[in-house]
Amino acid sequence: MNQMKGAQSVYFNEPVKILSHAGAGGKMEGDGPLGKHLDLIVEDPMFGRENWEESESQFLKTAGEIALRKAKKKKEDVRMAFAGDLLGQLIGSSFGIRQMDIPFYGVYGACSSVGAALSVGAMAVDGGYADLALSACSSHFASAEKEFRFPLGYGSQRPYSATWTVTGAGAFLLNKEKGDTAIRGFTTGKIKDYGVQDPFNMGASMAPAAADTIYQALEDFGKKPEDFDKIITGDLGTVGQKLLFSLLGDNHVNISGNHMDCGMEIYNEKKQDIHAGGSGCACSALVLSAMILPKLASGEWKNVLFVPTGALLSQVSANEGRTIPAIAHALWLTKAEPDSQPQKKN
Amino acid sequence: MNQMKGAQSVYFNEPVKILSHAGAGGKMEGDGPLGKHLDLIVEDPMFGRENWEESESQFLKTAGEIALRKAKKKKEDVRMAFAGDLLGQLIGSSFGIRQMDIPFYGVYGACSSVGAALSVGAMAVDGGYADLALSACSSHFASAEKEFRFPLGYGSQRPYSATWTVTGAGAFLLNKEKGDTAIRGFTTGKIKDYGVQDPFNMGASMAPAAADTIYQALEDFGKKPEDFDKIITGDLGTVGQKLLFSLLGDNHVNISGNHMDCGMEIYNEKKQDIHAGGSGCACSALVLSAMILPKLASGEWKNVLFVPTGALLSQVSANEGRTIPAIAHALWLTKAEPDSQPQKKN
Repeated sequence: MNQMKGAQSVYFNEPVKILSHAGAGGKMEGDGPLGKHLDLIVEDPMFGRENWEESESQFLKTAGEIALRKAKKKKEDVRMAFAGDLLGQLIGSSFGIRQMDIPFYGVYGACSSVGAALSVGAMAVDGGYADLALSACSSHFASAEKEFRFPLGYGSQRPYSATWTVTGAGAFLLNKEKGDTAIRGFTTGKIKDYGVQDPFNMGASMAPAAADTIYQALEDFGKKPEDFDKIITGDLGTVGQKLLFSLLGDNHVNISGNHMDCGMEIYNEKKQDIHAGGSGCACSALVLSAMILPKLASGEWKNVLFVPTGALLSQVSANEGRTIPAIAHALWLTKAEPDSQPQKKN
Repeated sequence: MNQMKGAQSVYFNEPVKILSHAGAGGKMEGDGPLGKHLDLIVEDPMFGRENWEESESQFLKTAGEIALRKAKKKKEDVRMAFAGDLLGQLIGSSFGIRQMDIPFYGVYGACSSVGAALSVGAMAVDGGYADLALSACSSHFASAEKEFRFPLGYGSQRPYSATWTVTGAGAFLLNKEKGDTAIRGFTTGKIKDYGVQDPFNMGASMAPAAADTIYQALEDFGKKPEDFDKIITGDLGTVGQKLLFSLLGDNHVNISGNHMDCGMEIYNEKKQDIHAGGSGCACSALVLSAMILPKLASGEWKNVLFVPTGALLSQVSANEGRTIPAIAHALWLTKAEPDSQPQKKN
């Protein structure tokens, strides 16, 4: 049976299982509503390192190590790692993975990177190319501000449409055999560009990509929005959410009853001064590890469409006055059937 | 039968076929020894665009379109695209792919990106997740100098160990059914870091990664160097080649009889002032399209181990005085058997 579904999606005959996962965050993330569900909170934004970038790499490595420990696996057991981050040339990932000495492919989709890492990792596991894959990503408030906007030392003010880059990393171990939760399928996103040029308003640039991918996932899998307990976008924030509803509404799709946005869950909007919500690769990754997977594992939710979103800008493209293209990848996540046996191939 | 081989490699029961491929280069590349085998030479370094980065994206998009045209396919037929480049946040790829409107995952391995794009693309095709995958990458001399070293306007002098970033893009369409050449298997690289800090000497930083991956590929596939007509690294250049031989020699592996380096093939060392050779994602990609695949298709070579190499530095990591980690991915390439039938699953 062909595993391709519709125009852009893949359905696994046997869901790929999430063996273990870990989320490590900074102080702000620890103070937020999901703080108690994180595996590690590191109060020192430098994580004992010399600069923000090394700190971010340390978050990535540490999250990977916690996921391995929870699964009683060693780093030598990881057959392929897929990781990405927001920094130029993915130095957050490469300096973090370097210390683990495991086979590695960098993947990139800005804040949607966890979606890319999980989709490609799931293919690697399902196809029998990797018995254990690590999908991970990281971001760091300070390294991201330096990379995209202004170094913190400038003391620049942030407009209300700006999001706050999450500091931390999420790591997910994928395999065929064991796990409470699973990847049932995924939808590969296309790049969408509606001409937004304001790097302080990434929600608006990403909403069209999210709308496109959600619409396509529902089409490809033959589902209605209410077939999912939740449809969860990455980091559209309060500004992007309105636009998402409007764009899907134009296509007669209403997800307002079961939509959630990771960027609106990770911080306490009233108590924490984060403006339009959280963002960054670690935003979706931490909410996935600290909230979505636990609720699937407990049975509170049965099916989730997880749609991390990414704005594909760079400092260079922004300085050149170019628009901000965006992408979103969707993952259909479920509770794993305890009695399901992985399908034997040959 | 399990497709994992040894510690880090994958062997496809049915080789994944390269349906078509294309290489587009700039004037320097056109003037080099492979110029007559490129599909397109664009004399204008701006490719009619407003800046170097848009020019690079135009190279990527154009190479993809030529590959599609050669295969008589439309962009709508591409199920998944995997592309990467050297620019921060992969804007070379994302602004190029954006215009094609196809499902997309960014992949990154610096100048080894074509290896990552082909390996992941081959998994996607072999596993039945994509009937047609596009693997591509780009680089541009001017955008790379601006990204990593000094803007061209500064008129900085380059030391003799420096390589010249290739301007252009290579694109490869993968499928199960048709093609003159094929991917027999691949070896996923690990990040290696021997402490090199000089961004003008990337050959030295990449040689340990190339040595490690070549050693592992030979081990995993149970091959001797002479089983391959050529073992072809990406862009070690003259400086890195010596170190590669020495490192492999320490492990009693001698590849000096059949080693080739894309960086040493793409330009005419005597006539073109390029110092240590060519580099950049497009270096391996153009040599693959203009030389390696044609020689495999004609039967001149039967088996090639293609090992693109990448230095995982960024401007930020270099400015922080950090070392340059590197990675190399290996692909075992063959002439496709004309009578082989794709294996039916279910």
